[in-house]
Amino acid sequence: MFLDASGSAPLTNRTLEAFHAGLADGWADPARLHTESRRARQLVDAAREALAEALGSRPEHTFLAHSPHAAIERVAAGIFAARRGRDRIVATAIERDATLHAADHVAAGNLTLVPVDRLGHVELDALARELAVPDVAFAAVQHGNHEIGTLQRLDRVAEATAAAKVPLLVDATASIGHGPAPEHWDAMVANPADWGGPAGLGVVAMRPRTRWLPAWPEGDDWAPGGVLVPAVLAAAVALQERLEQLDATTARMRGLVDRVRSTAAGWAGVDVVGDPNERLPHVVTFSCLYVDGEALLSRLDREGIAVGSGSACTTSTLEPSRVLASVGALSHGNVRLGLHPGVTEEQVSRLLALMPRVIADLRTEAGAPGLA
Amino acid sequence: MFLDASGSAPLTNRTLEAFHAGLADGWADPARLHTESRRARQLVDAAREALAEALGSRPEHTFLAHSPHAAIERVAAGIFAARRGRDRIVATAIERDATLHAADHVAAGNLTLVPVDRLGHVELDALARELAVPDVAFAAVQHGNHEIGTLQRLDRVAEATAAAKVPLLVDATASIGHGPAPEHWDAMVANPADWGGPAGLGVVAMRPRTRWLPAWPEGDDWAPGGVLVPAVLAAAVALQERLEQLDATTARMRGLVDRVRSTAAGWAGVDVVGDPNERLPHVVTFSCLYVDGEALLSRLDREGIAVGSGSACTTSTLEPSRVLASVGALSHGNVRLGLHPGVTEEQVSRLLALMPRVIADLRTEAGAPGLA
Repeated sequence: MFLDASGSAPLTNRTLEAFHAGLADGWADPARLHTESRRARQLVDAAREALAEALGSRPEHTFLAHSPHAAIERVAAGIFAARRGRDRIVATAIERDATLHAADHVAAGNLTLVPVDRLGHVELDALARELAVPDVAFAAVQHGNHEIGTLQRLDRVAEATAAAKVPLLVDATASIGHGPAPEHWDAMVANPADWGGPAGLGVVAMRPRTRWLPAWPEGDDWAPGGVLVPAVLAAAVALQERLEQLDATTARMRGLVDRVRSTAAGWAGVDVVGDPNERLPHVVTFSCLYVDGEALLSRLDREGIAVGSGSACTTSTLEPSRVLASVGALSHGNVRLGLHPGVTEEQVSRLLALMPRVIADLRTEAGAPGLA
Repeated sequence: MFLDASGSAPLTNRTLEAFHAGLADGWADPARLHTESRRARQLVDAAREALAEALGSRPEHTFLAHSPHAAIERVAAGIFAARRGRDRIVATAIERDATLHAADHVAAGNLTLVPVDRLGHVELDALARELAVPDVAFAAVQHGNHEIGTLQRLDRVAEATAAAKVPLLVDATASIGHGPAPEHWDAMVANPADWGGPAGLGVVAMRPRTRWLPAWPEGDDWAPGGVLVPAVLAAAVALQERLEQLDATTARMRGLVDRVRSTAAGWAGVDVVGDPNERLPHVVTFSCLYVDGEALLSRLDREGIAVGSGSACTTSTLEPSRVLASVGALSHGNVRLGLHPGVTEEQVSRLLALMPRVIADLRTEAGAPGLA
């Protein structure tokens, strides 16, 4: 019972078939001259075309990187380099670690975080104030937040960045494949593994007007040494499959998430986080007072249920979540669900039936006070 | 008839099966806490262990990168950073473009190329002279050359670098899987696609004593955002399969290459390149006077034969090969064969029977003088 489909999801049969076909047909190095390589090149070009269309970009302005992280690193470094003389980066306080690390690195620490409100929307006045100072290389604003699901109001954000003539880098790694692609961006990053494609790929879309300089003096700026062609093919097929079923899936996911939100809101000492309306359809997060996040995940795992956590999304980072702290939510005992199209009503029911007992048990074990 | 197995090769059934099994079992993000992720982590750890053993390294000092290029970039930047105050890099004149580009970039142009002799061996006296100046951050020396097949005498190279206390970076991207792994290195890079594994992966082995600093301030220094677990599994299985059959394959490849070398040496105006003895068993290169390299590749491709070329290994780089120029060989009309274990005696016979006519035709078309 896999309810942690944020950033990774089981591959569907259609995606697996595309991958297998790609391994048989697209194993050659697409950079060479002979038939085998031309075939690999055709496959990767067709896949890039499909990805570009889904992102609202053009194939010639759509690039494949080795991961979403690598994509963010290269796009951040390249836009920063092209904006010589503007040496500060502005980002929302709830961007991904990858974005903030990359921004902090390329700007040598000259990074300003703009606060968000309790639902996770960036404070537009504060953003405009930061952009008014003419030293901003670019602004990084997510489309949908990977932990709390809130969708930023990118139309208003883009008004502010356009007025200040500052490029807008949109992290769409949690949203593409789960709803319409964002329209307002100068550069955008997407993550195939998040929509049920393979890991080890990132996609970058750039507007033709966006200036960018390569960090390494090579021809292959985005993925030095190339990408795995069958994986690109599988990524494109997975996205196509998601988009074909988008309306039906979105409605069903929204219904399931609404059920989780309203049920969890009724549990004592539990905070449901993120905008209830302007949100990703498939992500929902709640936090449980007096409960240890790792213990909660382990207990659910023993019950055969995989969930994520904002405060424990990696084995090495068990610190309280910066995102949850930024929206003023409880940051411990956090459960993040990411639903994929294979998730059933019954699976969600089972989780909801189990949770109150699990929370109570863990509170008792921890000697926490009783809650009404 | 695929005779361009340098840097890419068709995947064997066993490798494909490992890949398929990995896609079914290892799709989850190995950095998370639940069972699905633990399973992916176990798969990648087991694969890394197998890779480390094959490279003569330890699992904890063996790292996965997003490609051989990305591996070379990160290892070069990291060793350079750790050698603060030593700001020059020394490399042989026949290193890969990826190595020279990375070295030139991290050393801001302070790169010294050491010449090689006509067989492709680095001039040891010249190398020692360069290393005697105490400003060398590291020396980059290939194990086997990807174009001409010559194996460097790494024992003697390592004596020189050890005497100068300079770290030795060995590019083994053309040799691992085709013979014993090199023993003499401080850092080493390998390429799974070269031994019949998938593209989009690089492997780095570092001696425990080798100092290295991360370029990006993140935890995941070698492959930010992670690698595709099923690909790592397939890479390990492909290498295991190659090594199990190594003795038989090597003998057969050597025999085929010897036949190509002696036959081609008999054609008028044809230069056979590289050391006839100290070489990779599966790579052979010859150059044809008055013949255009791209025309030659296209003509063979129309005959259903895929070969490589030192002067036309990518669609964008049709410049004469630096490697061939460095050994004083003809650099135009170059044919590079990379044989994989599936190549048969009959396929090689067909190529050898065809070549004299192809060369003669192309010379006639180009209005080249007749050759005895």
